[in-house]
Amino acid sequence: MSELRLNVISNEWVIIATERATRPHDFAAAAAAHPTLPAHRADCPFCPGNEQLATAEICRTGGSGRAWRTRVVPNKFPALQPAGTPERKFDGVFRSISGVGIHEVIIEHPRHDAVMALMSAADIVEILQVYRTRYRIIQDDPRVAAITVFKNHGARAGTSLEHPHSQLIATPVVPPQARVRLERAMRYYDEFGACVVCQMLAQELAAGERVLVASDYFVSFIPYAALSPFHTWIFPRRHCASFADAADSELQDLAVNLKTYLGKLYHGLHNPDFNLTIRSLPGFEHADYQHWYVSVVPRVSNVAGFELGSGIFVNTALPEHSAAFLRGVTVPD
Amino acid sequence: MSELRLNVISNEWVIIATERATRPHDFAAAAAAHPTLPAHRADCPFCPGNEQLATAEICRTGGSGRAWRTRVVPNKFPALQPAGTPERKFDGVFRSISGVGIHEVIIEHPRHDAVMALMSAADIVEILQVYRTRYRIIQDDPRVAAITVFKNHGARAGTSLEHPHSQLIATPVVPPQARVRLERAMRYYDEFGACVVCQMLAQELAAGERVLVASDYFVSFIPYAALSPFHTWIFPRRHCASFADAADSELQDLAVNLKTYLGKLYHGLHNPDFNLTIRSLPGFEHADYQHWYVSVVPRVSNVAGFELGSGIFVNTALPEHSAAFLRGVTVPD
Repeated sequence: MSELRLNVISNEWVIIATERATRPHDFAAAAAAHPTLPAHRADCPFCPGNEQLATAEICRTGGSGRAWRTRVVPNKFPALQPAGTPERKFDGVFRSISGVGIHEVIIEHPRHDAVMALMSAADIVEILQVYRTRYRIIQDDPRVAAITVFKNHGARAGTSLEHPHSQLIATPVVPPQARVRLERAMRYYDEFGACVVCQMLAQELAAGERVLVASDYFVSFIPYAALSPFHTWIFPRRHCASFADAADSELQDLAVNLKTYLGKLYHGLHNPDFNLTIRSLPGFEHADYQHWYVSVVPRVSNVAGFELGSGIFVNTALPEHSAAFLRGVTVPD
Repeated sequence: MSELRLNVISNEWVIIATERATRPHDFAAAAAAHPTLPAHRADCPFCPGNEQLATAEICRTGGSGRAWRTRVVPNKFPALQPAGTPERKFDGVFRSISGVGIHEVIIEHPRHDAVMALMSAADIVEILQVYRTRYRIIQDDPRVAAITVFKNHGARAGTSLEHPHSQLIATPVVPPQARVRLERAMRYYDEFGACVVCQMLAQELAAGERVLVASDYFVSFIPYAALSPFHTWIFPRRHCASFADAADSELQDLAVNLKTYLGKLYHGLHNPDFNLTIRSLPGFEHADYQHWYVSVVPRVSNVAGFELGSGIFVNTALPEHSAAFLRGVTVPD
């Protein structure tokens, strides 16, 4: 018998359809094959020595010339542009805002063939610190209502460039998903006087069966109502509304947690495509009900008509089974 | 310069990113190739003569034996099962309902290689009437809160079986998307004393530039805030809350409208994969603010990390251009 589970943070229902259960190993076979990449490509705008092929650099870490470790550049085909002020138009049911915002690319590593799962923890810390630096600066822009930091790994996850990179999009509106989470978190706080993220973390730790990696400051787990196989959340243990306020010690621990988790994906599921998002909303730094976290969605299954047409997801893998499988994957040193 | 557009029915923002504009013809090239299918397959559970390979028939149209025109059967791997009553469980933040519901398959045509775009209007009317028959019966089940009727065309849209079929899933909860639309429609009615679907239809007809097919009782158009290239809505002109109350004359006209629209997709974009959904909620038959409609999402683009992580969509095609392209496609008789 299948079961509907409610995710109380996102207000999403998922049908855990055990009748059509897929064994964890089968997802590994379904993962798209990644081509073997060279360490450097002469025509890649993100490779060292080709800096002139990319847009003008915003900032970097590492040395000068081609001796950088990370670089931030504007997206060459930006979804939103940083000039001007957002103009609103109203014409009956048609409402628009001019496309003002920020769209940046974080080049994560000089090597064309680097993969986050195989990077050193120090490399990952540096990338997380760059995310935080840009987040802190951009949140002060009065035109910005929300910042989405995300990474698409692999073609199935939407990458068009091979070289490892992340993106940041700052929008003049609060996205629908952030709005739902905000409303739900406020309502939960009204009812129970507690942060729903803190509560879920405590309950997932107590249950234990869906926990993947519990480190000093972070816990990665497959949520009780995971929308898809291996859908993972990484929660900071400390109640903290905004990613901007994550401490260095926390980012160091997050890097270790993330490296272990991504290593399990890489080795256990043969380097599947995935999307990673930092869920954090600026402007609620002192709210008792807001709590930032990281979400990872491995793209091992397809969204079909029912999901698109209802918003209810069908997960063919029991979250407890998916978690047990990943816990059992050993990541070589 | 790009533009953010708000869909006032779904409360979804879309970034129309003209900087990365894709020409309509390029989507045709991106459409996945469909294999040439035989008219009949000995191992297909949905082909005539193989009725014993499928689950027990619920109903059919046409003659006895293998002389049917459409058949309805339970899904062999149901997401939800029709036995028992939905039991709710509460354990802190973990909430669940037992997987009670209905999951049926509508086999649309005896021919394995039939394609809705190429069927006769009479064939399509019959399929729509079967949808309506099942919808009317199932909405009376007190365990059912919502009914989603949908069709996945092609592997990219999530089909696992080639033989043309649609599905119906009745859930014991109102799906999140239906809930948002309901709340928005009530609020719009509160503010303006009018149905937002009727208002949008009037405004799209007046603008004209996004209209695809305007027939006696239906209008198909690419919405002002289309979430993806060729994302299409087909609205009944008559204010009517529920698909269950669509008249025969309306279904006849819808079949003609749909056939013309799907023909334009088939010929103009080389038979792209698509998802089709009937958006209708039982229990609001007399509501002035509820209005059923049909949604079609051709799967010519990928959902990437920003969409997944924010709920804001990026559409690389200007809806007005997509509509002009499809209007220009001639469907051979």
